[in-house]
Amino acid sequence: MISVEEALQIVIDSAQDFGVEEIPFIQSAGRILKEQIKADRDFPPFNRVAMDGIAIAYSSFKNGQRSFKIEGIQAAGSEQISLQNLENCIEVMTGAVLPNKCDAVIRYEDVFIENGIATISIDAVTDGQNIHQKGKDEKAGDVLIKQNTIISAAEIGVLATVGKSTVKVAKQPKVMIVSTGDELVAVDDVPLAHQIRRSNVFTLVSLLEKLHIPSETAHLTDDKPILKEKIKSFLATYDVLLFSGAVSKGKFDFLPEVLAELGVVKSFHKVAQRPGKPFWFGQTKNSSVFAFPGNPISTFVNCLAYFYPWYFKSIGVELQEENAILSEDVSFKPNLAYFLQVQLSYRYGHLIASPITGNGSGDLASLVKADAFIQLPANQNEFKKGEVFKIIRYR
Amino acid sequence: MISVEEALQIVIDSAQDFGVEEIPFIQSAGRILKEQIKADRDFPPFNRVAMDGIAIAYSSFKNGQRSFKIEGIQAAGSEQISLQNLENCIEVMTGAVLPNKCDAVIRYEDVFIENGIATISIDAVTDGQNIHQKGKDEKAGDVLIKQNTIISAAEIGVLATVGKSTVKVAKQPKVMIVSTGDELVAVDDVPLAHQIRRSNVFTLVSLLEKLHIPSETAHLTDDKPILKEKIKSFLATYDVLLFSGAVSKGKFDFLPEVLAELGVVKSFHKVAQRPGKPFWFGQTKNSSVFAFPGNPISTFVNCLAYFYPWYFKSIGVELQEENAILSEDVSFKPNLAYFLQVQLSYRYGHLIASPITGNGSGDLASLVKADAFIQLPANQNEFKKGEVFKIIRYR
Repeated sequence: MISVEEALQIVIDSAQDFGVEEIPFIQSAGRILKEQIKADRDFPPFNRVAMDGIAIAYSSFKNGQRSFKIEGIQAAGSEQISLQNLENCIEVMTGAVLPNKCDAVIRYEDVFIENGIATISIDAVTDGQNIHQKGKDEKAGDVLIKQNTIISAAEIGVLATVGKSTVKVAKQPKVMIVSTGDELVAVDDVPLAHQIRRSNVFTLVSLLEKLHIPSETAHLTDDKPILKEKIKSFLATYDVLLFSGAVSKGKFDFLPEVLAELGVVKSFHKVAQRPGKPFWFGQTKNSSVFAFPGNPISTFVNCLAYFYPWYFKSIGVELQEENAILSEDVSFKPNLAYFLQVQLSYRYGHLIASPITGNGSGDLASLVKADAFIQLPANQNEFKKGEVFKIIRYR
Repeated sequence: MISVEEALQIVIDSAQDFGVEEIPFIQSAGRILKEQIKADRDFPPFNRVAMDGIAIAYSSFKNGQRSFKIEGIQAAGSEQISLQNLENCIEVMTGAVLPNKCDAVIRYEDVFIENGIATISIDAVTDGQNIHQKGKDEKAGDVLIKQNTIISAAEIGVLATVGKSTVKVAKQPKVMIVSTGDELVAVDDVPLAHQIRRSNVFTLVSLLEKLHIPSETAHLTDDKPILKEKIKSFLATYDVLLFSGAVSKGKFDFLPEVLAELGVVKSFHKVAQRPGKPFWFGQTKNSSVFAFPGNPISTFVNCLAYFYPWYFKSIGVELQEENAILSEDVSFKPNLAYFLQVQLSYRYGHLIASPITGNGSGDLASLVKADAFIQLPANQNEFKKGEVFKIIRYR
């Protein structure tokens, strides 16, 4: 049995590369950018009027002039015009090109207009005011978005601005999610007394959906030849297999055996943690196999604690570790890492983790009451209020 | 001009109800639950074996017996069997029904099996051990998920477990996103010297996508009759109109005028904030109109600071306010609330907000460098390192 830290390191070192694809930029939110995005021109691309008002030659104002005949209008989206007479002015709109020969903009609030004459009502006007200078934000060729950025609404806006109607992103892995266990019936079925409905595969589908990874699902009976045949075909088709169940010590827990027979090389089986100890991980040349124990919380936390980091490493994303402050003392005797469900709250810039008492790894409903797991290390039995530990959010 | 606090209160008080719809549970992640989810049976629904091993009558162990003849196997998914002879045992698998007449489970690790006889190798066995008692987690009829919960992977699992193959959720608003401004060209176009590409509508589409709200987009020229005709038809069709641009003091900023002529009742125009001051908000009987100023950061922050809370209020969700600790002194002279872009980091359970220096509301690329806005209140000019303020995340 290995430690959580060792298991995580092995999983991360086994990251795969799924390649790159080009997709419409508007569909790219949540995906990982696989090219550098550079400015195609200066930003702003011209001396840009930043306020609605009048544009003047600053020299005239400096010479004491306060009233300016309006020569014309420079609208946003119109070609640049020129001030013909330096003692006149041009009405200008936010977003317009600054007219030629002008070098200050006075906003309407500070101007009085009558009979085609604009009179400035303030004394403080500075050279270049209310002008967003060409290239001030970015120069043509500057990197605006780094490769391996997770694309959010902010990046979508920049992609649009530089004309990237399609964009290169990390391809997503092809994932098959498999449940086993003869006690499981479909969601639509009414279970008999000794049966329960399938739920883990749907939880996993949803956890992957959060990463924008589509997935397929299958249910296999606890029958070794059938398991073997099906899994063989899955290994040929998918980058990732996620299993729930059949990895423990039960008479029908054929999975480790079947995976070995199919040439999946085991990296480890069992991690010193609760819940989710019998976690099995291995790989073929082209596929990674995460076989999670079948208890709902075991499957859930292992997906978050191992599959998520493996995926982020695979696509080139480094995430910041989040940590939080324990709100009360916790005692945990076994020499195992303990993934404890917590509610998160914010107080004065502190992130507080309040433990939720569940009834062990089978208590699916207890997940609804929490927001995250706090990861309490092995080799420590008493965890004090105020101590800080890593958390793994799921909301 | 009203304060940010007043504006937000008005917006929240103007929340709409979009009704309820029933959708497949597997498509419901991110949506808001509009029914109570109750346990359809006890959880666990039977005395559930929690470890692979053997089940015995505890009384026999208590009487000193350590070796038990194996009578049979109780697999997960099989009907409950009975222990025929109280001095025998039954092999049991995790997830199985506890056999009748048994009341303790000893895991395989603590048992030695030879010639059909299981011998227990430990002395500490307790009555009921390794049995997850029927109804221990939840009783039939207990509320498992409250109405108005945002559905996440955890809730998806519970919905599956109780057989809710379809689920009632809040309907999403029908949203039209409209850009104005004659300087704007399509993402695929090469802009002329005085033009720029449309980007705000796509940023808004993406910000709404984060809320699982689909939206449509349109671009209108700065022509009053056209604006009026189009907006009239939008008001008849959509629950929400989001505008970007044409709300300031420019000669072609027809929007407030057109909206008034179309019977949209103005709640306010202009909020004491930077960026995004000329924000206009109003309603008809059936539609809400958020008209954001056209600078990219103004549109972005107003959507987060006003549309998001309005939406959550409309669908019945109360969100916790997040706050963070300022990492350095900030000085801001105008008597306006200041939405300052910040990078977030975690240190010892503290959420730290580090300001990003941008070049004002036109500097779209600066959004890429930050994670959130920190909201610095008006009526204060100096903000000290270590002070705590509300933040609005966008990643």
